[in-house]
Amino acid sequence: MPRYKAIVAYDGTDFFGFQLQTKNGVESARTVQGELNKVVNQMAKKPQPPIKVVGASRTDTGVHAFGQVVHFDFPYDIASDNFRKGLNTLLPRDILVKSVTRVSDDFHARFNTHAKRYIYRISTLDYTDPFKRHYTGHFHWHLDVERMKLALPDFLGEHDFASFAASGNETATTVRRITRVELTEKAEEHELVLVFEGNAFLYNQIRIMVGVLLEIGTGRRPVHDIQRLIAVKDREQARFTAPASGLYLDEISYND
Amino acid sequence: MPRYKAIVAYDGTDFFGFQLQTKNGVESARTVQGELNKVVNQMAKKPQPPIKVVGASRTDTGVHAFGQVVHFDFPYDIASDNFRKGLNTLLPRDILVKSVTRVSDDFHARFNTHAKRYIYRISTLDYTDPFKRHYTGHFHWHLDVERMKLALPDFLGEHDFASFAASGNETATTVRRITRVELTEKAEEHELVLVFEGNAFLYNQIRIMVGVLLEIGTGRRPVHDIQRLIAVKDREQARFTAPASGLYLDEISYND
Repeated sequence: MPRYKAIVAYDGTDFFGFQLQTKNGVESARTVQGELNKVVNQMAKKPQPPIKVVGASRTDTGVHAFGQVVHFDFPYDIASDNFRKGLNTLLPRDILVKSVTRVSDDFHARFNTHAKRYIYRISTLDYTDPFKRHYTGHFHWHLDVERMKLALPDFLGEHDFASFAASGNETATTVRRITRVELTEKAEEHELVLVFEGNAFLYNQIRIMVGVLLEIGTGRRPVHDIQRLIAVKDREQARFTAPASGLYLDEISYND
Repeated sequence: MPRYKAIVAYDGTDFFGFQLQTKNGVESARTVQGELNKVVNQMAKKPQPPIKVVGASRTDTGVHAFGQVVHFDFPYDIASDNFRKGLNTLLPRDILVKSVTRVSDDFHARFNTHAKRYIYRISTLDYTDPFKRHYTGHFHWHLDVERMKLALPDFLGEHDFASFAASGNETATTVRRITRVELTEKAEEHELVLVFEGNAFLYNQIRIMVGVLLEIGTGRRPVHDIQRLIAVKDREQARFTAPASGLYLDEISYND
């Protein structure tokens, strides 16, 4: 069967995360993967066994995506743009398929990833902007942005990020490489926008990194506390996990 | 009792409009006015009779506001910023009080208005951007923006807008004065942003005006059909009402 790769955007607000959730074989929560599975199987006229959509990244409840990547095998040969339109016509309005492309049979959305980029939006108003309540992490304590900018590069490079993994993390190693960090202050919009790029990230890693950065911004942690946290490899020390609503899976790149 | 004026923003998505709805004296739907009433009375320690919050504009279900104006009488004298903070601490996250100011006893949010400004955001992508589904009117047919720009000034001036009033309109006269119209194309965001300013608007007037403009944009109506519609004064002729989700009550100004 031809294999297809799709780039998918979604507003994570009304989903219990990306990953399909079942109980006794029955879907038990609304998930992005569950919706994609339904629509792909509907377009394929419900083949047996059903088609399974495989995603690159298991985003959590409330986390958004501009560029989630999925792959699936499909019994028919459909032109890219018609495929995109067909899926979007059937999908609920909080999921958008941005593109569909035919890929080789050995393409795998999760295993072939080369780099992932995430964005985290922090809203700094004293009370939440009603239009941003689902789309930013709201943090109303005073932040010293210069301190945060000094701290941020401490994440760069290959490190054991054990201190930055949530307790649900089950990967064999906690060593990851971060290749890009960026902090932009959007004063007019009362927002700070963070960008993180790396080869892969641990469970909740970005939200924990943002939490540490925010505590550096308030002065609760010393500027170079990230270096100490990397050294101690103790997941009890980075306690504050920034809210899911500010996190966006922005882009995933692949090895050729 | 001291009278206060408040400027209020809200995300209209989860409200059945601004205006309080009751059935047999019991609140029957979630409304902005209902939420404001609750919180103001809570801050005033539930006086009898209860305080009533009066709004300038009865926005519909799904319509948003950056600058709704309300007034109410309150038994205590509270400094502006403390009042704002107190209300915001109690309000749900889809309503934000932007400011509270003490006003004279004869200030009335609805009767003293001088001008109202509305914004309408049109999303022109072929499928809805998941992040804009509640915040724009989605219109995927091809639009000739130059035609729309030619047509737009036909709304300017004092006219009988009977053709642009929804059937629920109950005002004595349908004559209104429009003082400003504007159309901005935001190509990168695939959006058209319309601005309308006038002394007052009829029920659903802006959404019907946007509907006519969109039909001019697609070529379904002649460029200067607005002039004809104003002349015929027939509410059956402007059929398409643009979705509530794109409409924002932006600002209300008052006579001194």
